[in-house]
Amino acid sequence: MQDTKIAILGLGLIGAAWAALFVHHGAQVAAWDPEAAAREGLADRMATPLRQLEQITGQPARGRLTVTGDLAAALDGAALIQENAPESIPLKQALYAQIEALTEATTIASSASALCWTDLAPSLRDPAQLITAHPFNPPHLVPLVESYGTDPARLNGAEAIYRAAGRVPVRLTKPATGHIANRLASALWREAVHLVAEGIADVPAVDAALVHGPGLRWSVMGAHMAYHLGGGPGGMAAYLDHLGPSQERRWADLGTPSLTPGVRAALTAGIAAEADGRDIPTLEHTRDAALIAVLRARTSSGHL
Amino acid sequence: MQDTKIAILGLGLIGAAWAALFVHHGAQVAAWDPEAAAREGLADRMATPLRQLEQITGQPARGRLTVTGDLAAALDGAALIQENAPESIPLKQALYAQIEALTEATTIASSASALCWTDLAPSLRDPAQLITAHPFNPPHLVPLVESYGTDPARLNGAEAIYRAAGRVPVRLTKPATGHIANRLASALWREAVHLVAEGIADVPAVDAALVHGPGLRWSVMGAHMAYHLGGGPGGMAAYLDHLGPSQERRWADLGTPSLTPGVRAALTAGIAAEADGRDIPTLEHTRDAALIAVLRARTSSGHL
Repeated sequence: MQDTKIAILGLGLIGAAWAALFVHHGAQVAAWDPEAAAREGLADRMATPLRQLEQITGQPARGRLTVTGDLAAALDGAALIQENAPESIPLKQALYAQIEALTEATTIASSASALCWTDLAPSLRDPAQLITAHPFNPPHLVPLVESYGTDPARLNGAEAIYRAAGRVPVRLTKPATGHIANRLASALWREAVHLVAEGIADVPAVDAALVHGPGLRWSVMGAHMAYHLGGGPGGMAAYLDHLGPSQERRWADLGTPSLTPGVRAALTAGIAAEADGRDIPTLEHTRDAALIAVLRARTSSGHL
Repeated sequence: MQDTKIAILGLGLIGAAWAALFVHHGAQVAAWDPEAAAREGLADRMATPLRQLEQITGQPARGRLTVTGDLAAALDGAALIQENAPESIPLKQALYAQIEALTEATTIASSASALCWTDLAPSLRDPAQLITAHPFNPPHLVPLVESYGTDPARLNGAEAIYRAAGRVPVRLTKPATGHIANRLASALWREAVHLVAEGIADVPAVDAALVHGPGLRWSVMGAHMAYHLGGGPGGMAAYLDHLGPSQERRWADLGTPSLTPGVRAALTAGIAAEADGRDIPTLEHTRDAALIAVLRARTSSGHL
């Protein structure tokens, strides 16, 4: 992606991770934020991602970064606008109005997490100018980018840029709150909270069961594929025939917990036991080192 | 675990994986099945697990295997009885009656998956003789063993044996159908099916989003820990304060699909597209190679 210009709008943690990712892979990144403090803190927030990307690829950053408070300068000549404004509909839509006054040609890709395309696009003169392209935290390490839009050519263009930056774009066919990944994560966590709330297992036990069981497996194959292989020689069709009814009974038995004060206390105490004195930066450091090792292993071994 | 004798009862795929695992790690394994055909097929079913365990550890198998149709001979002197009979309450309980006539001292660890301790233990003269110890497929590669029982000494003894065989035992504090891991997997798959049923994403997209997003992350840290790190410097408590209500709204928005003929057809067609002509053995081979690579990476990097 050498010589491709990418505009990054909004320079918090997500914007900084995108900036590091694109600079690492050789792009000309124009980073814009209306707040001087956000612009000034960008280099700090990019330092760890840039170092980790060097570690993963064994290559130094090949691109270039300019930081600006001038939106027109940031957008001029950009192949893609990656928008990382706060998760507020009026705030994002006000920014889109500024952008479309400057360009209606360049695709705006929103990193929106809690909001989806339907919440954001209607205010644009040409709603097709907007796509959602949601990265998964930490965005420079986890390859997933979930995309949705109404113009296949714009989606193809943006996804080609993400692929050039080592990402794996996955396209939704219909917009949904939480896209795919956060809906799956939310569904799993609901049951994880239920197990704690019901006293079936404590927080460290639930987390250990996930990491050493299905989580490990889902790092190399998806949930549908797991049931395909669980069906024996007949695959998914056999699984659904033989175990579909018992799966539906299990679904009916899953929990619907509430985050009552008692449940919150159990979760907070449980995570303190699991963290065992390690502060957040220490935990993030361990997570990132492990993610980098697993990413490297998958690259050399392949996966489903 | 050199010189420890383990009795493996029931020699299907799960029994064969246990046998391979214990033989690899140096145990004296006595493998019993009432069916001659099951005994004769055991060596075949153990071949791939044994080869993969050599590949993981770089060590040849150090234990010894004897195969017998004589239950008393299999149990004589065993430190642990790993029971892998079919998932049928009367069938398992009939076997327990045979066992307790021979020994009430040795712990019976049931690999029961769909059944839980409460379904099985009441028929024993001493229900505490039974624990459940559920491995996660494929059992010789995925380290998780979910344990439950009422006698801490028996649990400690069995878990020490699992640890010596490179497993990670996780203890439940209360029995539950599906234990921990299959409940989490079931909760996630329900939403994965919902996404397909609602036309939000197709089967390959859902699987790719999981493998390149939360699945990757759950291979190095649990779901509770992910929300702890998602809360910023305030951790889980801050997450619950700021995002608890939006998480509860997301839970309310999750799907409750039914496996109707239309949904089954979408799942079956979708998995065929994802498999892309690869048959089950080919897919299993890819899965296993990737699991081995990720396990090695985690061993060298650590994880949360």
